[in-house]
Amino acid sequence: MTYCVAMRMDAGLVFLSDSRTYAGVDHINTFRKMHFFERHGERVLVLMTAGNLSISQSVVNTLRERIESGGARNLCNVPTMFEAAKHVGDCLREVHARDAESLKEFGVDFSAGLLLGGQIQGEEPRLFQLYAAGNFTEATQETPYFQIGESKYGKPIIVRIITHATSLDEAVKCALVSMDSSIRSNLSVGLPLDLLVYQRDALRVGHYCVIREDNAYFALIRKLWSQQLREVFSALPNPDWENIQLTAEALRQNTSLNTPRSEKREGES
Amino acid sequence: MTYCVAMRMDAGLVFLSDSRTYAGVDHINTFRKMHFFERHGERVLVLMTAGNLSISQSVVNTLRERIESGGARNLCNVPTMFEAAKHVGDCLREVHARDAESLKEFGVDFSAGLLLGGQIQGEEPRLFQLYAAGNFTEATQETPYFQIGESKYGKPIIVRIITHATSLDEAVKCALVSMDSSIRSNLSVGLPLDLLVYQRDALRVGHYCVIREDNAYFALIRKLWSQQLREVFSALPNPDWENIQLTAEALRQNTSLNTPRSEKREGES
Repeated sequence: MTYCVAMRMDAGLVFLSDSRTYAGVDHINTFRKMHFFERHGERVLVLMTAGNLSISQSVVNTLRERIESGGARNLCNVPTMFEAAKHVGDCLREVHARDAESLKEFGVDFSAGLLLGGQIQGEEPRLFQLYAAGNFTEATQETPYFQIGESKYGKPIIVRIITHATSLDEAVKCALVSMDSSIRSNLSVGLPLDLLVYQRDALRVGHYCVIREDNAYFALIRKLWSQQLREVFSALPNPDWENIQLTAEALRQNTSLNTPRSEKREGES
Repeated sequence: MTYCVAMRMDAGLVFLSDSRTYAGVDHINTFRKMHFFERHGERVLVLMTAGNLSISQSVVNTLRERIESGGARNLCNVPTMFEAAKHVGDCLREVHARDAESLKEFGVDFSAGLLLGGQIQGEEPRLFQLYAAGNFTEATQETPYFQIGESKYGKPIIVRIITHATSLDEAVKCALVSMDSSIRSNLSVGLPLDLLVYQRDALRVGHYCVIREDNAYFALIRKLWSQQLREVFSALPNPDWENIQLTAEALRQNTSLNTPRSEKREGES
């Protein structure tokens, strides 16, 4: 599995991916899931992938070959992010046309999830999520983030924090906390992480870094978050049983559903 | 969907379930997923269910009929929790034998997940998770909780907080915070909640309550947790880009993977 998250705020874009692929507990590998395409002053495109690794690598290689061969339509010359998303979707469909039938014979689903974000000169920064069928949706002011892969563990903190007005630094923190929750809950999500920050209208990558086990900032965030979460949790008031609901009342309300009828006949509950 | 969590601490057991069933956005219903069987001074057994509602209701009805008909083996006379888990597994297999084939014809999986916990006089409190095949696992000192249904959103806080030494009140808070995260992240988890607390060796239900929209304690927990989580989050240090890893260095380390080869040839990155 994998966990990738991308966020599109007014201030720019944040991308974070783990790098673990998983095919059973004795087969865990590290592969990069973040790829970026940059022309200073003109465009920055960032692609993150989840799902079957052979499929996502084939898509990325197809995209690169189109660029290298100077294809009529490639990520370095499409005029808009919408055209870029269509191009990635088309490459995904090419891979599907080649591989899906053979995979099916071996009982393997054609699974793929991609996030594509960036900015092309003349447009706002945009963010898309692509599905295995090559179709896609775009992030909006109301839903300014997408996740792919093992996304559920890390969703609650994003739901609470991220809006289109969140600053890039806050979004980076949120992405890292979200990743921390995923790593703690699921063995198949692991370091190193790729982090990329894009500031609106910069038209070049702002920050890109690889976060390994020895990264002091990520270690600090993990430690502080864990400590302070426990403190906040401990400070929450304990249940006040008198005022929640009396047992007797609740039992009376729910007798028919929650106690076996024989018990009632015997007058034991 | 559903979300249920059960925890087995040294001090006793905590059970929490939501009550929403889901078969598409226009078909959301409220059904209870918690059932308990109690003989004061002798036994308390609590069952929570997830998966296909017709299957889980059939299992519960089968269990009740066995009790009412004074079956040779039923939840009110089995001598141990292990025997109780085997009995529930057997009832699940009966329902499977009756329904699985017909469901399959309609493309419906035989899906079921159950949690069974409680205490029978002469034993410690125990907690089991049962799977659709009728097999089951037991909670241990190291892994003192089980979740069924839409469990991922609510897992991170449990992973951070719950150990076998956690108090019952802390466990109740943790279960409610976990449920809050699930409700915020997934429409298919919803109020009212059933909460049951069992104190070790009491051999009767300690607290049982139904938490509805107007429950003041749950509302307070939700509000405080949300506020204070934001405060803790805001207080986390912002990324210190100088010391995380320099963009240039990261780029140098990852050029071959992360920049298209044509870009390199053109000397643009």
